[in-house]
Amino acid sequence: MAEPTASPPDPGFGERLIEAVAAHGPLCAGIDPMPALLERWGLPDDPSGLAAFCSGTLEAFVGTVGVIKPQVAFFERHGSAGFAVLEELVAEARRSGLLVIGDAKRADIGSTAQGYADAWLGDGPLGVDAVTAVAYLGLGALEPLAEAARAHGRGLIVVVRSSNPEGRGLQESVDRQGLSVEDALMAELARANAAERAAGRRLGSLGAVVGVTQGPWRLPLGEFGGPILAPGVGAQGATPADVGAVFGDCAAGSVVVNASRSLLEAGPRPPALRAAAEALREELAAALA
Amino acid sequence: MAEPTASPPDPGFGERLIEAVAAHGPLCAGIDPMPALLERWGLPDDPSGLAAFCSGTLEAFVGTVGVIKPQVAFFERHGSAGFAVLEELVAEARRSGLLVIGDAKRADIGSTAQGYADAWLGDGPLGVDAVTAVAYLGLGALEPLAEAARAHGRGLIVVVRSSNPEGRGLQESVDRQGLSVEDALMAELARANAAERAAGRRLGSLGAVVGVTQGPWRLPLGEFGGPILAPGVGAQGATPADVGAVFGDCAAGSVVVNASRSLLEAGPRPPALRAAAEALREELAAALA
Repeated sequence: MAEPTASPPDPGFGERLIEAVAAHGPLCAGIDPMPALLERWGLPDDPSGLAAFCSGTLEAFVGTVGVIKPQVAFFERHGSAGFAVLEELVAEARRSGLLVIGDAKRADIGSTAQGYADAWLGDGPLGVDAVTAVAYLGLGALEPLAEAARAHGRGLIVVVRSSNPEGRGLQESVDRQGLSVEDALMAELARANAAERAAGRRLGSLGAVVGVTQGPWRLPLGEFGGPILAPGVGAQGATPADVGAVFGDCAAGSVVVNASRSLLEAGPRPPALRAAAEALREELAAALA
Repeated sequence: MAEPTASPPDPGFGERLIEAVAAHGPLCAGIDPMPALLERWGLPDDPSGLAAFCSGTLEAFVGTVGVIKPQVAFFERHGSAGFAVLEELVAEARRSGLLVIGDAKRADIGSTAQGYADAWLGDGPLGVDAVTAVAYLGLGALEPLAEAARAHGRGLIVVVRSSNPEGRGLQESVDRQGLSVEDALMAELARANAAERAAGRRLGSLGAVVGVTQGPWRLPLGEFGGPILAPGVGAQGATPADVGAVFGDCAAGSVVVNASRSLLEAGPRPPALRAAAEALREELAAALA
């Protein structure tokens, strides 16, 4: 993966993440309008239901958390009308001062990767603060996204160690240098972040998804130098104590812990949802202190 | 990955692919409205330009090829308005008898993978004949997509050996059983296809993306038993002769070879684009005969 050539404009996504966590704690609230939650909230499984779900979550989360993560699949299943709701959510959330991580897990090469960069890390209607991606085609193939992230003050968050058990076989496979897939990816991201930090940023623009469920990593995560998005707390079984065990060495403000289903089940009433988010936020902040 | 439990409804995607290739040859025409091509065609880089591009390609390709592959990223970069154009393209192409492979390379787990299955392999506005996916989180994580494909007569085409050089390090990494990532994935897909074929289908519903650019595989591709989508011809440097060398052993009608940029540069006039598709189609058919 190429190293950044120009001095980056500030603030980058990393800087903005550090500030968001300082102000509101390390909880990233998932916005997952899946059919089961729509039903639980008494909403129809259609674009109008999505819109009402998004309004309810924003009412609860603005001022309570610093970062939200809409799960794109649950908008995509409603086609272009679902994407129109996502565009509204992104615009309203960013106007309200929330950082938005688009959980899209996009993956491609060359001009197509540039297409995804234009979609998610530019000024178009889906432009978010950071987007998730998958590197099966090599981290180098994602370079157009990485470059867009660095140039536009956005983040690219690559799935490195996923929270689900089915991913272990692939992610633990070993390359010719003797590095596991996940170790090699993490090292390559850390190198790119180090170059960006040398150019003056506190945290690089290239993040990693690191599941809490796999336990502590033998890698020194404290030296990663980029944002970490940590899924696995709640419905997938990990606890705030696990978060402390895995990420205790990481730089302040560099880790956000996602909760989706377990949190959203506290709705649909915004006060109840807000109270659940406040409680989890405090637990996570204590675990990472 | 779970094996299918119920006897599948016919025809499955594999059966329909065999018929499409028998009628129109093994060319899969990419629909890639990237900025450079829109400019070359004299079209604006906005949803109206996309719509005109799609009209032109359909006019050239209906009756000329059996399969088209819209590249989702180039619609996504225009947000919900771009997806509305993609919905129109998919509907019109399927009404015209074309098989549509949505090149989305989606990747996720659990209820989110189910969300992508709902989006692409159901009867919603983006419902296509087959969708591409990426298995960094494990093939088992894609089971909701595989199950939807089998149950609804659709295809799930997983990127196994990509056409770009940056993917080799990861895809050649070796698991605990001594299998490379790509060999392990291919074997797992072949097992699921074998079960489906035992239930009466000529070809299973789980396909693989296998780049032509990496040369012949030591795996016996002829035993794969599912659809193969082969990128790499044209702009990426592979030739029809390479196609014959890599896929010569595969079952008749199981391989479609994608061409996008190199083909679309023959436009914008539909007759010129059609002539280019006819010529390439014949070259590929001869290479695979």
